[in-house]
Amino acid sequence: MTHVAIVYHSGYGHTKALAEQVANGAAEVSGVTSQLIPVADVDSHWDDLDKADGIIFGAPTYMGAASAAFRTFAEASSKRWFTLAWKNKVAGGFTNSGSQNGDKGNTMMELVTLAAQHGMIWVSLGLPPGNNSSKGSLADLNRLGGSLGALAQSNVDQGGEDAPIASDRATALAYGRRVAEIADALKRAQL
Amino acid sequence: MTHVAIVYHSGYGHTKALAEQVANGAAEVSGVTSQLIPVADVDSHWDDLDKADGIIFGAPTYMGAASAAFRTFAEASSKRWFTLAWKNKVAGGFTNSGSQNGDKGNTMMELVTLAAQHGMIWVSLGLPPGNNSSKGSLADLNRLGGSLGALAQSNVDQGGEDAPIASDRATALAYGRRVAEIADALKRAQL
Amino acid sequence: MTHVAIVYHSGYGHTKALAEQVANGAAEVSGVTSQLIPVADVDSHWDDLDKADGIIFGAPTYMGAASAAFRTFAEASSKRWFTLAWKNKVAGGFTNSGSQNGDKGNTMMELVTLAAQHGMIWVSLGLPPGNNSSKGSLADLNRLGGSLGALAQSNVDQGGEDAPIASDRATALAYGRRVAEIADALKRAQL
Amino acid sequence: MTHVAIVYHSGYGHTKALAEQVANGAAEVSGVTSQLIPVADVDSHWDDLDKADGIIFGAPTYMGAASAAFRTFAEASSKRWFTLAWKNKVAGGFTNSGSQNGDKGNTMMELVTLAAQHGMIWVSLGLPPGNNSSKGSLADLNRLGGSLGALAQSNVDQGGEDAPIASDRATALAYGRRVAEIADALKRAQL
Repeated sequence: MTHVAIVYHSGYGHTKALAEQVANGAAEVSGVTSQLIPVADVDSHWDDLDKADGIIFGAPTYMGAASAAFRTFAEASSKRWFTLAWKNKVAGGFTNSGSQNGDKGNTMMELVTLAAQHGMIWVSLGLPPGNNSSKGSLADLNRLGGSLGALAQSNVDQGGEDAPIASDRATALAYGRRVAEIADALKRAQL
Repeated sequence: MTHVAIVYHSGYGHTKALAEQVANGAAEVSGVTSQLIPVADVDSHWDDLDKADGIIFGAPTYMGAASAAFRTFAEASSKRWFTLAWKNKVAGGFTNSGSQNGDKGNTMMELVTLAAQHGMIWVSLGLPPGNNSSKGSLADLNRLGGSLGALAQSNVDQGGEDAPIASDRATALAYGRRVAEIADALKRAQL
Repeated sequence: MTHVAIVYHSGYGHTKALAEQVANGAAEVSGVTSQLIPVADVDSHWDDLDKADGIIFGAPTYMGAASAAFRTFAEASSKRWFTLAWKNKVAGGFTNSGSQNGDKGNTMMELVTLAAQHGMIWVSLGLPPGNNSSKGSLADLNRLGGSLGALAQSNVDQGGEDAPIASDRATALAYGRRVAEIADALKRAQL
Repeated sequence: MTHVAIVYHSGYGHTKALAEQVANGAAEVSGVTSQLIPVADVDSHWDDLDKADGIIFGAPTYMGAASAAFRTFAEASSKRWFTLAWKNKVAGGFTNSGSQNGDKGNTMMELVTLAAQHGMIWVSLGLPPGNNSSKGSLADLNRLGGSLGALAQSNVDQGGEDAPIASDRATALAYGRRVAEIADALKRAQL
C-alpha cells in the first residue's frame, strides 16, 4: 500500500476541515491509505511520517505566514532534514485564511521551501482557476485561483462547520486525490 | 512640489485603469503632482523618474509574475541601480490578474524586491482586508485582502472599461493617495 | 526623541549578535534611542512597541522560514493589527542562517509581509552588494548581497561570539543606522 | 526514451554554462535524452517541449527576478497553460546572479510558480548545503545552500568561461541528473 500522511495545524477548525478533505481525497485512490496527524500529536507519529510515501503539509495563514504551531513542527523536522531522510517523498500543501488573498501565497512558498529543504518532490494543484470570468461563481472548483496547492478562505465570523465554503472543500478533496496518485505512481516506479 | 511617477505596463487595459486611479489618488494630495509613464515610453522619461520623490510600479500578473514588458523596464533601471540613484525614494506597487489569487503575491514580491535593490522605501497598502466576513461583499475596499500594495482582479472575458470592479479601483485610488502623502512627508523632512 | 525598537528571537546567539549591532547603529543617530526586546520578554514591552517610531524585526531562518518563537510574537501582534495600531511606523528586518543562501529570502519576505499587514513603511538595506567580483572578499560590506534588509551567515559549528563574521555585523550596524535615520525623518515630518 | 528539455535564457554566458551542465547531467541517466533550448529559439521547439517528460527552466536573476527574455517565453507558454497541456510533466529550475544571494530566491519562486500554473511536478535540489561550517569551502557541492533548484553566483567582472566556479557547475550537473531520474521514474510508472 502507498501511504500518504497529512500533517497539519488548525487553530479554529477551518484548516482541520480542509485536512479531512485532503485525507478523504487521498484515500479514494486505489491502493492508497491516508492518515491525519495534527502537529500537536506529531511526537507519536514521526515513524508514520518516515514510512509515508507522501506528506501533505497544512497550516493556517496567520499574519501572512504559516502558524507558529506549524513552524514548531517544521523546526522539529530538522532531525530528518539532517540526514535527508525524507528525500524523494512526494509533498503537497494547503492553507486557509480569513481574507481572499491574505498573503496565502507566502505560506505556500514556506511549505514548498520546507519540502525542498527535505529534498522532496512537490505536487502542484493541477486545476485551472475558477471564478475568473463573468460566468464564474464562488461555487467553481479552485475559485481562489491557486496553483501551488489548495487554498481556502473562511469568513472570520464563521466556525469550521460553516467555513470554508463547499468549493474550497472540493478543491482540497481533488488535491488530496492528485497527490496520492502521484505518490502511488512514484512508489510503483521504485525511484 | 512633491512628484510621484507611476510607471506601469498594461496588456489589455485593466492595469492601465488601475494606474489612472493611483495617479488620481496621488494628485488629490495637496502639494503633489502625479505622472503616468507607460513602460513603452520610459526612454523619454528617465529624467522624470530620477526627479520623482516617489515611484509606483504597476504590472499585470502573467503566468504568476510581472509581465515581460515590465521586466524589460526593470532591467533597464539597472543603470540607476548601479549608482543607487533612486536610493531613499518612496516606492509602491500594484498588480492585476484574471484569477482572484492568481499568484499576485509573487508579482508584489518582485516589485518590493525591485524597490529594495534600488534602496527605496516601500509603502504598504495600509487598509484592513474587506470581504472577509459573512457581512462583507465584493464592494468592500480591499476586497481581495492584500497588504503589500493594491491588488485587483479582472474577469478574463471583460475589457478595461468593465474590469476590475469599482472596489478595486477605489482601493488603487486610496493607495495612490497614501503613497503620495508619505512621499510628501519624507520630502518635507529633507531626509 | 525618536525611538526604535528591535524585537528579535535568537536560538543560539547569532541573531542576538546581529540585533545588538542593529541597536547600536540606530543609537548612533542623533536624537534616536534604541531598545532590544527579545520575543520571550515581549509581554512586558507591548507599550514600548506601541510608542516606537520604528520597529525592526529579527529572526533566525530555520527550515527556510522565521523561527516558531518569532512567529509566536508575530501572531500575538495581531491585536495591534486589528486596529492598525502600528500603521505608518517605520519597519525593517534581518535574519541569519547556517547556509550562505539557506532560503533567507523567504524569511525576509515573511518580515516584509508582517510589516505590510501592520500598514508599516519598509526600509530596504540601501547598500550595493559586496563580494560579487574577482576583487571582492568576505570582508565586504553586504558580502551576501541582500537588498530587503540585513542578511548574515553563521557557520553551524561556531557560536554567537565567533559567527557571523565582522562584515555581516558591520552590515547590520549600517542598517540599524539607516532605519533610524528614516524613522527620525518621518517623525520630524509629523506624517 | 525519456526526454528532458532545458529551456533557458542567458545574457552573458553564465546561465548557458549552467544549462549545459544540467543537460549533461540529465543525459548521464540511462534511457534519458536531453535537449538545450535557448528561449530565443523556442518557436521552433514547442513540439519538443510538448513531448518532453521533464522541462527544466533556467534564467539569470536581473534586478531580483527572472530576465525579461525568460518571461517572454513564460508568457508565450500560456497557450499550453490554457489546456494544462504540460500537466504532470516533471519540472526543475536554476538561476545565476552576480551577488551571493542577489534575491535568487525570488527567481526560484517564479520558476516554481510557473511550473505550478502548468500543473507540473517540481523536483527540489536534493543536496545538503555546503560551505556552512568552519571546515567548508567554496569547492563544496551546493556551496550556496539552495534547496528549490540549482543556484550559481558569477563574479560580475568574469565571463561565462570563468564563472560560475566549478562547484556551482557540479551542482547543476547533479541536479540535471536528479531531475532526469525522477522524470524517468514517472514515465515508467505511466502516471
